[in-house]
Parts: sequence; C-alpha cells; structure tokens
Amino acid sequence: MRNFDQNSITQAVLERVAGASDPRVRQISEALVRHLHDFIREVRPTQAEWEKGIAFLTDTGHMCSDTRQEFILLSDTLGVSMLVDAINHDHQTAVTESTVLGPFYVEGPPEVACGTDISGDLAGEPMYVSGTVATADGTPLANAIVDVWHSDEDGYYDVQHTGEEAGLVARARLRSDDQGRFHFWSIRPAAYPIPHDGPVGKMLEAQGRHPWRPAHVHFMIAAPGHEKLVTHVFVAGDRYLDSDAVFGVKDSLIRDFTAHPAGTAPDGRAMDRPYCALTYDFRLNPVSEAASQAA
Amino acid sequence: MRNFDQNSITQAVLERVAGASDPRVRQISEALVRHLHDFIREVRPTQAEWEKGIAFLTDTGHMCSDTRQEFILLSDTLGVSMLVDAINHDHQTAVTESTVLGPFYVEGPPEVACGTDISGDLAGEPMYVSGTVATADGTPLANAIVDVWHSDEDGYYDVQHTGEEAGLVARARLRSDDQGRFHFWSIRPAAYPIPHDGPVGKMLEAQGRHPWRPAHVHFMIAAPGHEKLVTHVFVAGDRYLDSDAVFGVKDSLIRDFTAHPAGTAPDGRAMDRPYCALTYDFRLNPVSEAASQAA
Repeated sequence: MRNFDQNSITQAVLERVAGASDPRVRQISEALVRHLHDFIREVRPTQAEWEKGIAFLTDTGHMCSDTRQEFILLSDTLGVSMLVDAINHDHQTAVTESTVLGPFYVEGPPEVACGTDISGDLAGEPMYVSGTVATADGTPLANAIVDVWHSDEDGYYDVQHTGEEAGLVARARLRSDDQGRFHFWSIRPAAYPIPHDGPVGKMLEAQGRHPWRPAHVHFMIAAPGHEKLVTHVFVAGDRYLDSDAVFGVKDSLIRDFTAHPAGTAPDGRAMDRPYCALTYDFRLNPVSEAASQAA
Repeated sequence: MRNFDQNSITQAVLERVAGASDPRVRQISEALVRHLHDFIREVRPTQAEWEKGIAFLTDTGHMCSDTRQEFILLSDTLGVSMLVDAINHDHQTAVTESTVLGPFYVEGPPEVACGTDISGDLAGEPMYVSGTVATADGTPLANAIVDVWHSDEDGYYDVQHTGEEAGLVARARLRSDDQGRFHFWSIRPAAYPIPHDGPVGKMLEAQGRHPWRPAHVHFMIAAPGHEKLVTHVFVAGDRYLDSDAVFGVKDSLIRDFTAHPAGTAPDGRAMDRPYCALTYDFRLNPVSEAASQAA
C-alpha cells in the first residue's frame, strides 16, 4: 500500500472502502471512487485547477444557510436532480409526473383552510388555484396534505427576502376535502432566475448559460399508502419552457393559467378585478405493501 | 428540451454546457456531467439518499474554516489528491517524489534563520533536521524557499489548537545557503489521525477505515526555474506506513530519524539530552522555458 501511480491508486482506494459493513455504503463508495477517478484521469487537472475545485466546493458550502441551498442548485443545474427524479419515477404512466424539489421548500409551512388567500400583502394579478387529489385509478383521496409554494410577481420567494418585510407568504399547507378537492387564492407567479450571486451563478456564466426558470407553482402532495408527489405546474406560453435552467419541464405539467374578468369566482368570491385560474387534477402512485412497510 | 428520461437528460445538460466560451471550462464541464451522471445511473440513489448526499456536502462545506479544510480531507481520503499528484508528476525519476499538501499548510509561515529551534515551548524529543536543495543533476540551489511544518508529539498541528496557547509553532520558512544547505531544530512528530470529528470522519467510519497517518515532516520547496516541490519525509518503521489514510506514502520519502546521545550536535549545539536527526537531500524538477513563461 505505497508508491501508487495514477492507475494503481484507484485499486488501493477501492480495497480500503471494501471494509464498509453496510453493503449499500460499500456499493456507493466503490462507484464514487471509480467514477471520480475516471473523471480526474480524463481531465488531468493541474494542481492549480484542483485548488480551484476545492475552493468552488468550499464556497458552495459556505453559501448554504437556512434559506439558501447552493448544493441543491448545483445538483439542479447539472441535471442530477432530474436524473434522480427520473430513476425513481420510471414507468409511471397513470400518475402525475414529478419534477425537482428546488431549494425553496420550507418544512412545516403555515396550515390554512381551503379558500384562503395566501398572498399576504404581495402585489400582483390574483390567481385562483383549484384541483383534486386522487389515486392512480381516479378514486379521490380525502385529507391529503397539499403543500404549495411559488414566487411573487418579481420572481422572488418569501425566503429570499430579509429584514422587516420577511415572513412566510405565497406558501401554505392545505388538506383535500372528502372528495379529494382543494382550492386557494394567491397571485400569479413569474419566471425567475435561480439565485445566481453565488458559486453556481459563476459556473452558469462560465458555461454560457442563463439562470432562468419558467413560471410555475410548486406542489408537494402526501397521502397514506401513496408515494409523496413532488412537482410543479408550469404556466403555458412561458418563454423559458424550453430552456429551464434546471431541466424540470414536462409537457404534462404545463397548464393554461386562464384569464377571467371581474365577477363571481368559482368559489363564490366577488372579484372586483380580473384574475387568472389554474386547475390541476393530481394522481398519486400507490406504494406496494412491501415498500410501504419498509418506509 | 423537455420530458427528459434518465438517458436523454445527460445529452440535454451536455448541450447546455457546450456554450462555454473557454474550451477548458467546456471540457471539464462535459466530463463532469458524463461521469457524474454515470455514477448516479449506476448507484440509482433514492430521493432520501440524494438528500443525504446534499446534506453531506453541505456539512463538509460548513466544516471548512480558516484552519480546517474538510474538502481537502475528502479529496485526500478518496485518493483524489494523490491521483492529481501522480498525473502532474509522471515520469520524474531524477527528482524528489511529491505527495499530498494536506490541510494544515499556512500561507506565509514565520521566516527563521537556519539553526533556529522552531518548536517553541512544545514538549518532545529534540529533532535536528538538515538537508540540501539541488536541481535534477545535483547542482545546489542557493536561496531556495524551504517551508516546513509538522505535528507535535501528540499528533496535533498548531492550527488545531485554539484559545490562549494558540500560535504558529513547529512551522517555519527557511532559505537554503549558497551551497543549497539548510538546517533547523524542532521536536519529533508523531503519527496522528486526520481530523475525524466532521463529515469525513463519519465517512471513514462508515467505510470501516481508520483515520491515521504515519509520522512525517512536511516540506514545500520553491526555487526559480523549478517546479514547486510539495512533499513529506516519513519516519521509518511507523506502523501506519502501509495504511496511510490519504495514500501518500512512497518508499523514496521514508528515512530513519536516527537516535543520537547527548553531546555536541552536527551544528555545534551542546545537547544535554538525546535527540534524533533527519537528513534529506531534495532534488527539484527544472521547468521547461515554455512552462516557465506560461506560469
């Protein structure tokens, strides 16, 4: 175990990690070493480039805080998040497609009753959102947990604001009723650049890429006996649908946010100005009994 | 650019990074995407495992400070640092072999005259270190910068201490004389575990590995017209020479730290107790004129 050259070093590290007691840790460690060393042997970094790589990872870690997850941005922009998503949602045709979680989800969002306006004092075009939650065959799922979050009309999420105006807004947890239905009011979200004032922004710039995502509303839906659904609904016609910085767009997740004049809204609310309406019927994947017990 | 599956996503990301204006950025980005996606496709992480990976990288970043470089530890323990070293020092037979920098180098160490005792008030067995710096053909290099650093008798580096006793010790910058010679006094270093109270320590434990490195003295030597040499000299007989946690040992870098009784030391110092002595003659790699101009 001495005097390694650029080929024998790989075997040496593989032998070292073979002692992992957990076979999954061993499998992941061995694959990581092989692929990481192959990458290094292909690009042949200089010592200075290696130092730049260490500095990039360090800066990315230092950028992470309670409200900023730069490593998720890195995973998203390198297509890793959507690849993991695809691996875990293969061959699911009867259920709603999933997409990236993104870096802006907040654990334990404010619980609100159906019909609540969650936009707080944000300015913007009113948006009525309604939908249903059902299992794969269409049977409604009552009391499903429906977490929603989206940007404001300038493309910012609540957690990106600091100072006096900071607070959770355009974000909530609802529950589906006994027919699987839910609805709420908010404002129309906008397309936005992912936060690009950090290391990932510099990487995108060096790669000649824009940081924009098409406008969307995030949904995370959980119901007993079903796989948790993490997805968005995108606004039809957005200019970034074909160049999403995080590769998250699927045709089945695009909807018209339909224009409505002032008047009585579907939930009976009297609207004194125009609004848009989005509706989406979500179908969740039932988990096998074995998977359910393992979880 | 929508509806990617677990194979088409890779091509999509490759097309996106192909716009990099710097060909080296493009090359590294493309290789990174291919190898990273291959790794993900091989291990097929669950969503929960992906989250664990994000958390591991985030914790590793948060562990990094002015005096702790957890990403270098990660690179070292995965064999990446020695692989980069091997790639950059191939086919060099007439010069001193290199090894990892490690995480404990401090820029701008205290400059001292030859003969200085750099151990401060550390307890330990006195150590006399002497050597020469020469170019590949043996011609002495005068006025070379010789940075040295090593652990104390308990295996700790100065920068690992905090509080009142903190300060730079067992660390210095010397210069070779007109015959390429240098010498200094310190105390004998000990084998030590790399810092393992962070994410990398947890990784080593999960992989069934110990965190120990054999005892050594670090050298970084720079002279005009030559490649900077980053290396260690290891203590012969150390129990960890064949299982160094960072894969850094080379036979040519092992030396006896010879025992001497009390008496007059080689530099004329009167020693009232036994001491050990290390000597090493370093040979640096001349850089080609082209490489020198590019640097």
